[in-house]
Amino acid sequence: MKKGPFISVIGASNSCTAEERQLAEEVGRELARRGAILICGGLDGVMEAACRGAASEGGLTVGILPGNQREDANPYVTIPIVTGIGYARNSIVAKSGQAVIAIGGSYGTLSEIAYALQDNIPVIGLGTWSLATSEGPDKSIIMAKDAADAVKKALGRVRKGGGNGSH
Amino acid sequence: MKKGPFISVIGASNSCTAEERQLAEEVGRELARRGAILICGGLDGVMEAACRGAASEGGLTVGILPGNQREDANPYVTIPIVTGIGYARNSIVAKSGQAVIAIGGSYGTLSEIAYALQDNIPVIGLGTWSLATSEGPDKSIIMAKDAADAVKKALGRVRKGGGNGSH
Amino acid sequence: MKKGPFISVIGASNSCTAEERQLAEEVGRELARRGAILICGGLDGVMEAACRGAASEGGLTVGILPGNQREDANPYVTIPIVTGIGYARNSIVAKSGQAVIAIGGSYGTLSEIAYALQDNIPVIGLGTWSLATSEGPDKSIIMAKDAADAVKKALGRVRKGGGNGSH
Amino acid sequence: MKKGPFISVIGASNSCTAEERQLAEEVGRELARRGAILICGGLDGVMEAACRGAASEGGLTVGILPGNQREDANPYVTIPIVTGIGYARNSIVAKSGQAVIAIGGSYGTLSEIAYALQDNIPVIGLGTWSLATSEGPDKSIIMAKDAADAVKKALGRVRKGGGNGSH
Repeated sequence: MKKGPFISVIGASNSCTAEERQLAEEVGRELARRGAILICGGLDGVMEAACRGAASEGGLTVGILPGNQREDANPYVTIPIVTGIGYARNSIVAKSGQAVIAIGGSYGTLSEIAYALQDNIPVIGLGTWSLATSEGPDKSIIMAKDAADAVKKALGRVRKGGGNGSH
Repeated sequence: MKKGPFISVIGASNSCTAEERQLAEEVGRELARRGAILICGGLDGVMEAACRGAASEGGLTVGILPGNQREDANPYVTIPIVTGIGYARNSIVAKSGQAVIAIGGSYGTLSEIAYALQDNIPVIGLGTWSLATSEGPDKSIIMAKDAADAVKKALGRVRKGGGNGSH
Repeated sequence: MKKGPFISVIGASNSCTAEERQLAEEVGRELARRGAILICGGLDGVMEAACRGAASEGGLTVGILPGNQREDANPYVTIPIVTGIGYARNSIVAKSGQAVIAIGGSYGTLSEIAYALQDNIPVIGLGTWSLATSEGPDKSIIMAKDAADAVKKALGRVRKGGGNGSH
Repeated sequence: MKKGPFISVIGASNSCTAEERQLAEEVGRELARRGAILICGGLDGVMEAACRGAASEGGLTVGILPGNQREDANPYVTIPIVTGIGYARNSIVAKSGQAVIAIGGSYGTLSEIAYALQDNIPVIGLGTWSLATSEGPDKSIIMAKDAADAVKKALGRVRKGGGNGSH
């Protein structure tokens, strides 16, 4: 059976903007058209919009839920993973993607970006965080200009394996 | 898109017996024939045998991996979930099933049985643990006589929702 | 600074019996008298009774909480650890002890016993689970006859290191 | 028994700079002098330097370890917590502090900052990340000018409770 590629889409739940929701839906549609499996946190906002887009093209979607109830998943999640570990599940959302597309700028999204970068998983950004240390800007997030560009960049950088050998 | 039922199959990795491996493969085949999605820990032994059985019938399999490498998944896993949380992932394997089929008797399996029973998720046993407290036997594990019986009992008891309200 | 020994005390929260509560308080007192640091899940029932006993003798107590609020800790916890990972924290309670004393028989306790045995951490039982596989009784839990006996057996078997090399 | 305040000190392990190590040691000393309990990830680099500073003033230190071995803790950790959940333990390091002092700029540190800010736990920065979203700079991290200033700001903002009600 075909496996992947697996792309994680991360972003805020209901606090996201209408524009972010639209971007997420386009990203989801484009991922499904290109045969990718969408991984996300399974809730509403950016996550639901991305799943709705993917589902509209017949794509498979995985929702890695923070809580204990499979009904917490948005209606477009095909495979709910019931973690029960709260927002510590953010690291699983990041690690389960071979590339990550980050939309918008919540703190949950920031934690997922940090986990992905720590594991050398490519992060593509759409209106998301900009990072700098005391030594200057950190350019690790690959900025995309629109949804199609984000998906193209993500699929072009799909990372084999996982982890960074530091565990 | 059709969703579930989701059945978790739990059991030892390479320390399992040849008989357990055969039971697991039959359980996997039977689950796929009946349209269930198989959830497991994604590694070898009972997990690999169950996935191989499901894959032989075209079924979908999810492997919830303890480590940081998607390559840790056995070759019959369709959707690898890369948790990086070690054996704490056992609670996710239990919670993500609407029923659990336990094959054999490792301590990892015992932790998964305990999590499932705590969450009121039905546990079907095939040659697995027997439990007793100081007050006498605990009959919560539903014993099955063979692989087909285990799958029948699991699908007949599929639990909606999840969690037990105690979190 | 002196370090440990660290002994985990596990058991049910408010569903515990009055007798279990009394046993737990005696275990806590005895651990503190012998200079051990008590690790537990930080909530009520057996956990609170054990902490109260330890605190009455000036002992140090660590509560590894499932939720996100440090106020969830019982009043006798000195060091609250706020995990936010729900009952997946049971594996941390087990692993953080160099020996584990199990009082009574809830499913949460069973998951902690399983994690401890998987990691070769000695488990001392006071009116707790009895285990058997299809091959017969599993005698890994060391049964104690009273609180003082449990503490003596736990301290006599304190395990250096941790983990079982299988991660 | 006196409880807290609990202050988390976060920063890189061996990849930290000599200057960060010195800052961390001063932070640890100052926290201990003021009676705070130091929470950290328990490993080397910034974590070890902070613990060494605290220990030199007789302070209590907690090391929340990613792995399965208590021996992974640096020699100045009083209370090792053996999580076995890898870098998903970063959220526990953040949540267990009533304020967080971030030194330097690794990705692990960034994930901990994100978790703290998500939970409304005050974050004090010493040469750490600067954040911006598409809407402009995020000023949530409170910048300190030196170790004493960081400790003063952290203790002045110690947060009761925990969590942000969103779980």
